[in-house]
Amino acid sequence: MNGSYAVPHPALTPSPIKKRKEDRIDRKGLRRHFISYLAAMPPLQFQLHASDKWSGARAGTIATDHGTIQTPVFMPVGTIGSVKSVTQQQLKQHVNAPIILGNTYHLYLRPGTVTMEAAGGLHRFMNWDRPMLTDSGGFQVFSLAANRKISEEGVVFQSHIDGSKHLFTPETVMDIQRVIGADIIMAFDECPPAQSEHKYALDSMNLTHRWLDRCFHRFNATPDRYSHTQNLFPIVQGAVHHDLRKASCQYISSKEAAGNAIGGLSVGEPEPVMYEICALCCDNLPQNKPRYLMGVGTPWNILECIALGIDMFDCVMPTRNGRNAMLFTTRGIINIDNKKWERDFSAIDAGLDNEWSQYYNKAYLRHLFKAGELLAFTIASVQNLSFYLWLVQQARAHIVAGDFRSWKETMIPVLKTRL
Amino acid sequence: MNGSYAVPHPALTPSPIKKRKEDRIDRKGLRRHFISYLAAMPPLQFQLHASDKWSGARAGTIATDHGTIQTPVFMPVGTIGSVKSVTQQQLKQHVNAPIILGNTYHLYLRPGTVTMEAAGGLHRFMNWDRPMLTDSGGFQVFSLAANRKISEEGVVFQSHIDGSKHLFTPETVMDIQRVIGADIIMAFDECPPAQSEHKYALDSMNLTHRWLDRCFHRFNATPDRYSHTQNLFPIVQGAVHHDLRKASCQYISSKEAAGNAIGGLSVGEPEPVMYEICALCCDNLPQNKPRYLMGVGTPWNILECIALGIDMFDCVMPTRNGRNAMLFTTRGIINIDNKKWERDFSAIDAGLDNEWSQYYNKAYLRHLFKAGELLAFTIASVQNLSFYLWLVQQARAHIVAGDFRSWKETMIPVLKTRL
Repeated sequence: MNGSYAVPHPALTPSPIKKRKEDRIDRKGLRRHFISYLAAMPPLQFQLHASDKWSGARAGTIATDHGTIQTPVFMPVGTIGSVKSVTQQQLKQHVNAPIILGNTYHLYLRPGTVTMEAAGGLHRFMNWDRPMLTDSGGFQVFSLAANRKISEEGVVFQSHIDGSKHLFTPETVMDIQRVIGADIIMAFDECPPAQSEHKYALDSMNLTHRWLDRCFHRFNATPDRYSHTQNLFPIVQGAVHHDLRKASCQYISSKEAAGNAIGGLSVGEPEPVMYEICALCCDNLPQNKPRYLMGVGTPWNILECIALGIDMFDCVMPTRNGRNAMLFTTRGIINIDNKKWERDFSAIDAGLDNEWSQYYNKAYLRHLFKAGELLAFTIASVQNLSFYLWLVQQARAHIVAGDFRSWKETMIPVLKTRL
Repeated sequence: MNGSYAVPHPALTPSPIKKRKEDRIDRKGLRRHFISYLAAMPPLQFQLHASDKWSGARAGTIATDHGTIQTPVFMPVGTIGSVKSVTQQQLKQHVNAPIILGNTYHLYLRPGTVTMEAAGGLHRFMNWDRPMLTDSGGFQVFSLAANRKISEEGVVFQSHIDGSKHLFTPETVMDIQRVIGADIIMAFDECPPAQSEHKYALDSMNLTHRWLDRCFHRFNATPDRYSHTQNLFPIVQGAVHHDLRKASCQYISSKEAAGNAIGGLSVGEPEPVMYEICALCCDNLPQNKPRYLMGVGTPWNILECIALGIDMFDCVMPTRNGRNAMLFTTRGIINIDNKKWERDFSAIDAGLDNEWSQYYNKAYLRHLFKAGELLAFTIASVQNLSFYLWLVQQARAHIVAGDFRSWKETMIPVLKTRL
């Protein structure tokens, strides 16, 4: 492939790292909870309610201690403990999000594990009583590129905030996610670039698998913290190499986790390649466990991947693009900055049966963007998230009704329309 | 006084201004509405329900076509058609604001009168169905200092957005406010600096009075636009000179307007002087009309001025200071940036019987400010506005109960406390 990596896979010993006092894990606390660990609560339950005859699409439910999630589902990203420019009330009332995401890397750096622990976990810290998922920080750490060093032990990286050095290992990442306390936590993986050549991707995958063993070892040796069950999802890697992806799926499946994730997609590879790898992974991951495709994607990506058998999605696109004046609607994509909306007083999205999408009009939203008003970000983000949640709910309804594939074929050109 | 103005009052002829096409007023539209003007709707009704025995404080109601406002009232400022970082739903549901403000200067420049007119006025543009007030742009224009020229005709000023030249006259300002369509609109005045010497302040006051005649003339010659009554409030000026303020009150009162405003305070004069002038104006303005003190102020300013007889307030302080991490609460002022709140998981304001103030905790809000999350601005702004509205509602309740003065004396030290 073009731009393939020729460098050998890094396996350096990390430079010694001083732990900041506030980053140390409260091991006494861990011991105190050991009794509750012995009487471990059951993991999340996944039930399949319907499968599409003409595709891999399926409708299910994931039951967690914070409530039930209907799948397929889209999970808004709340990086640092906040879905950007959206309130928790709006997420519940308008977006109707059954689950949100937090980022381990960001939460570890700020507010840090001591504050997180003192708060009683992220749920209580941000007052979110529905399910929550945290990623492992792997993706963020690897995005730091020049500012990190990978070794067998883990990754040494520099904080993007103050340049301080930190070490993430499978063990510390499990400990941190225990403290954050999400219902679903992710294994610490290496996410290689899409263009990685076979040797690099193989080494990287094997490292991810060894790290996975260490993740499960640590996860199983530590108790749930806040009276609810945490579930560890492993992540399939292998770049765009079919044999590696297949091997990774087999390894990941052998863990018999409550759910499985597919990482390392939507990181620069062409769309058809993403679908191809996604299909291969869905075929090689257990049917009776939820499948989570990390960091994907556009509305049409989501419908295509639902058709391949994906149950869970997350992406910053609805909020990030929203803050850049791009609206996703039931009739297509709107660049609300455009002059053409200057005196269009129609609802932002008349097709969305949602008070929010009817409340504000296009000309008003354009005006707010032009004037640099913060309310613009909120209106656009809530619209886009509402739309994404509507889309997966519609997908589910059509899977149950049995006409998912034809509905998807009708919808995709609409979703791609530039209004 | 120190820093008094020695320059003569400017009375220049304005340089000729080209009107942008979109800033021209739709005079055909005005004519079309002439019939409804002939059958003019009644102006707002002000009723006094209780007066405090021990001070000038009073409890009343202002009935407008968009609903009733209990006084004393605080009006959140929605400069460009949005109360910064707060949604219209939050203003209704959490802040409980019965009326909000818009700024003529800002709305004239962006989105402009043509869009405003096409939208059917600001109420419809921003979907706000409660009462609304627009200032006249006088204060903003005079804040431009070097970028404006005052003459008998009006003020030529340069846009802060693109440097383009514009002319505001009493007539154009009435026309613009007709198009914006607020329930209460303000006369075009000159707001001289607090330190203005007697001669400058006298000339300025006389100009404001001559402009007031022109405002009323234009106002009375033009119809209400959107099936609701607009009410023109004149503004008392005269800097800190007692004789001028008294004369201005007499002139303003002679207009028998539906309500009267006091301008030119809280512009740099010491607090005792502000109270002194405010008291003088309250004594010299009609008892049976609402009195609006423009642009004031801190929570204790508001209680003191309620005691003097003020019924209406507006100020950017709750939102602007909120965006700078300053919280106003029932227990005092919090700088939420401070380290001391890092692990304080108590509600933002336990004393405020408001879902919002209980929903988020102090440590979380501090974290959001530290992380630069936009949600911080929203949480702080809604808290501060909720508090301001709570404060005036409490004041009203104590006026009605007859113990306003003693309550105020207890409250003021609390309000000033730095937590």
